[in-house]
Amino acid sequence: MNGFYHLGELATRDIDRLVSRALSLRERAKPIRFEGRALGLLFFSPSLRTQASFQRAAGLLGIDLVQLQAGGGGVWGIECGDGAVMDGANAEHVREAAAVLGRFTDVLAVRAFPRGVSRAEDAGDPMLNGFRRFSGVPVINMESSKWHPCQALADWTTLDMLRVPRDGKLVLSWAWHPKALPQAVPNSTLTMAAQRGMRVVVHRPRGFELARDVMDEARALADNSGGSVAESDDLASFDGAHVVYAKSWGSLEHYGDASAEAAARADLRHWCVTNAWMARARPDAHFMHCLPVRRNVVVADEVLDGPHSRVIDQAENRLHAQTALLEALFSCLPLERSRPSTRAIQDAPTSAMEMQP
Amino acid sequence: MNGFYHLGELATRDIDRLVSRALSLRERAKPIRFEGRALGLLFFSPSLRTQASFQRAAGLLGIDLVQLQAGGGGVWGIECGDGAVMDGANAEHVREAAAVLGRFTDVLAVRAFPRGVSRAEDAGDPMLNGFRRFSGVPVINMESSKWHPCQALADWTTLDMLRVPRDGKLVLSWAWHPKALPQAVPNSTLTMAAQRGMRVVVHRPRGFELARDVMDEARALADNSGGSVAESDDLASFDGAHVVYAKSWGSLEHYGDASAEAAARADLRHWCVTNAWMARARPDAHFMHCLPVRRNVVVADEVLDGPHSRVIDQAENRLHAQTALLEALFSCLPLERSRPSTRAIQDAPTSAMEMQP
Amino acid sequence: MNGFYHLGELATRDIDRLVSRALSLRERAKPIRFEGRALGLLFFSPSLRTQASFQRAAGLLGIDLVQLQAGGGGVWGIECGDGAVMDGANAEHVREAAAVLGRFTDVLAVRAFPRGVSRAEDAGDPMLNGFRRFSGVPVINMESSKWHPCQALADWTTLDMLRVPRDGKLVLSWAWHPKALPQAVPNSTLTMAAQRGMRVVVHRPRGFELARDVMDEARALADNSGGSVAESDDLASFDGAHVVYAKSWGSLEHYGDASAEAAARADLRHWCVTNAWMARARPDAHFMHCLPVRRNVVVADEVLDGPHSRVIDQAENRLHAQTALLEALFSCLPLERSRPSTRAIQDAPTSAMEMQP
Repeated sequence: MNGFYHLGELATRDIDRLVSRALSLRERAKPIRFEGRALGLLFFSPSLRTQASFQRAAGLLGIDLVQLQAGGGGVWGIECGDGAVMDGANAEHVREAAAVLGRFTDVLAVRAFPRGVSRAEDAGDPMLNGFRRFSGVPVINMESSKWHPCQALADWTTLDMLRVPRDGKLVLSWAWHPKALPQAVPNSTLTMAAQRGMRVVVHRPRGFELARDVMDEARALADNSGGSVAESDDLASFDGAHVVYAKSWGSLEHYGDASAEAAARADLRHWCVTNAWMARARPDAHFMHCLPVRRNVVVADEVLDGPHSRVIDQAENRLHAQTALLEALFSCLPLERSRPSTRAIQDAPTSAMEMQP
Repeated sequence: MNGFYHLGELATRDIDRLVSRALSLRERAKPIRFEGRALGLLFFSPSLRTQASFQRAAGLLGIDLVQLQAGGGGVWGIECGDGAVMDGANAEHVREAAAVLGRFTDVLAVRAFPRGVSRAEDAGDPMLNGFRRFSGVPVINMESSKWHPCQALADWTTLDMLRVPRDGKLVLSWAWHPKALPQAVPNSTLTMAAQRGMRVVVHRPRGFELARDVMDEARALADNSGGSVAESDDLASFDGAHVVYAKSWGSLEHYGDASAEAAARADLRHWCVTNAWMARARPDAHFMHCLPVRRNVVVADEVLDGPHSRVIDQAENRLHAQTALLEALFSCLPLERSRPSTRAIQDAPTSAMEMQP
Repeated sequence: MNGFYHLGELATRDIDRLVSRALSLRERAKPIRFEGRALGLLFFSPSLRTQASFQRAAGLLGIDLVQLQAGGGGVWGIECGDGAVMDGANAEHVREAAAVLGRFTDVLAVRAFPRGVSRAEDAGDPMLNGFRRFSGVPVINMESSKWHPCQALADWTTLDMLRVPRDGKLVLSWAWHPKALPQAVPNSTLTMAAQRGMRVVVHRPRGFELARDVMDEARALADNSGGSVAESDDLASFDGAHVVYAKSWGSLEHYGDASAEAAARADLRHWCVTNAWMARARPDAHFMHCLPVRRNVVVADEVLDGPHSRVIDQAENRLHAQTALLEALFSCLPLERSRPSTRAIQDAPTSAMEMQP
């Protein structure tokens, strides 16, 4: 493995291996130890589970941490644009930040939510891809504009742990929320479930469709796995579901336009997962959510605290899935780093700035 | 031990054991090592000594750290209220935050100062108690609205280190400060000294009484230990004191009302511990303060830099007391965690959300 | 060694030893391990390279970290002034903060940029010197108002790595920047190169001279090493340079006066290092900058991404230089700390607050 940007880029058999290892780690298999290696954690966006689980995983694996937190004056503002004239707020370019952190660590993990201004800009995942292009080390996506592959890998682990059939039915249900949230989690849930072979229904109001390219990728993955992908705004889509996966996200139509977004969802507060909604699913259906979740807004207390809820196990599996992922990535590292040796620099100066991911 | 919320909940013989161990650690006894275990540190409020001493203690004990800092965009805002409809600023409920962090760590330590809006709300210590109810692991209070038990344990250690008689006299003296500070430290100092058997006088202006339930608890502890508890606004209360413990706190009468509070203390700037005040105590009296302290406002330079001051030793003992505390807590951990096994979840879904402290 | 405040305080033979060790560590020499020891990292100012490289170095050396971040609600505001009446924003004095952190750690590293209000105040480096006076442990300057010795040590390492002649020519070139940046880096670069024996030219517009005392120290160091120090606003100073070191800094004339500063640099946007500028230097000249750097403002993309640029190697050498520095400092620590023993405190209370660096 050389990085982890989007779960869909991995072959299903490789995912199965990671999930199997994650489940062994959950049952207290002994983690591999990687003394003398370092993992960089760089957060541009808030995090509870991701920070905590990566810190813990590194501890279990004996990996040293390099931890940086943007915001609160922690690190410099970072520019991503090629050719930018940097006379604004950002003091540093991702070309340097990535290359330098790549010299200090063996693997870099980065969280960078979308800026939420331009859909086109965010679709390019400029910060994550900047680190992938310029760091020279494997990069783990801890949630970008587009994907949250660690969540997807943990969720696949949870589905296997719960013995949900590979061809079971999963409803990914939109829910109301006071703000327009990013699409990284629904994108990742949808494509993960499609790749796993599930019958997926995206249950969302009109106007809250996911991006066409993501839907297309999900359909292609489902074609390959024997699964299926559908969309509906009808609650009947819950009928017979093995899994209800709730998540709120913003409308792509109104991207970056807070007032149009607010108007579009003004009448949708009843999109909240209740026991009445769950009653349409199978009696042993599992309720999932990536967390954090707003109680009695996205999902009612009665569901979160009731027998269907798997959200805490789901979060715990972040730890085991990421421990398995780090084991795989650190096991693949070269013994010697590829950075130019002292002599090479003296003899033949060349630009080693850009390394393709 | 199953957590550490309020020193007064421990039997005196157990405190004596912890203090004795803390003093041995101070004299360089070898700490126990707990490989493969993790301590979570979660700060909702600023900290210098507490952060630094817990980090160092974990290092000495070989415990991995999971560190989260609220504020500055670090983690999500956390809601504590049962049944809350979460359409405001908080993105996550303590029920999930606590339960998830309990899966990633073996012991959780939390600092959460009072919000300072409602006395009744703060009296319930909702954030700390939320973590105690929902995390499923022992929780250490690193200062809540009501108590600062790590400070109290360290202060008892300092008193023993200094060979202050168990029935010595301790004056807890209020001091002026530009802001209304929380009562956690004075509450903890008062009850700690009462439990230790000391003759305690709370020296404060009228209108700055500590909470009645705390005074009552202190009197009950003193009855049991042979100590005593009194209140006074007369400087004569310093006469013959072994220990002067300075601390500022806000008026409970004007809780959450900054302008009434400012008026109540407008004429009290002379409540500052000077050499003249110290001269009333015993010649070998010790001056204590939990730090941080505002120089020449709460206490004069001449006292802090003079021969009575023990504030640096007092702070150093935070490290030794907490190392002893962590040893005790980590030594009591079950070999296997109580979380439901994979099979149990599959076979009999139940809500394991709420665990009584 | 007892701390590291300014590279110029070290004898050249000691610098040579550190640099030689840094180059060995770069070629993967095995670091010394210091089990049971702790390094404190305290940041009052933003950092990417410094944070990351010190974290990594501590990991390589097996040193426990105590990490504190001011800003974002992390720690209390810290007052430096002697005799201050602390009724303002700062809750804690450096006398206590330093002394306490010195009890929790074996070595303290502090970053504190200038406040930028008063040139006289900043020239005294009050925060760094506060930690040196009061902590009782060796203090590493991670960049103060006046010096950035870790950068200087890493840069000397880079110059040796690149086999730049000891008497080679180094141009320290000012560049335009939207803000008045501190002088710590140019001060350190200038004195480092002078001490190394280089022919240094400070290329800056009139009005952007470096401080007279720093220039005088550089000249004295050059007299001793066989180097030289000159100043110029003429691009001809690039002729024949082995090294071009770019850096922006604020005018000392207009210290703390943002509008006068803006006026002084309004016509200087063309002070940007381009290939045309580099063409005046030797064909194998090295371009250096401490980073972060504003692309196409301080230096053009064509230079940073071209064959002259050494900025990433330069940043990597921060890690190796600081690992060598920490090895040296931790190897010099006394087996027993000098803090007063329990008995000494009981028998003869004295003030141990102020310890000269």
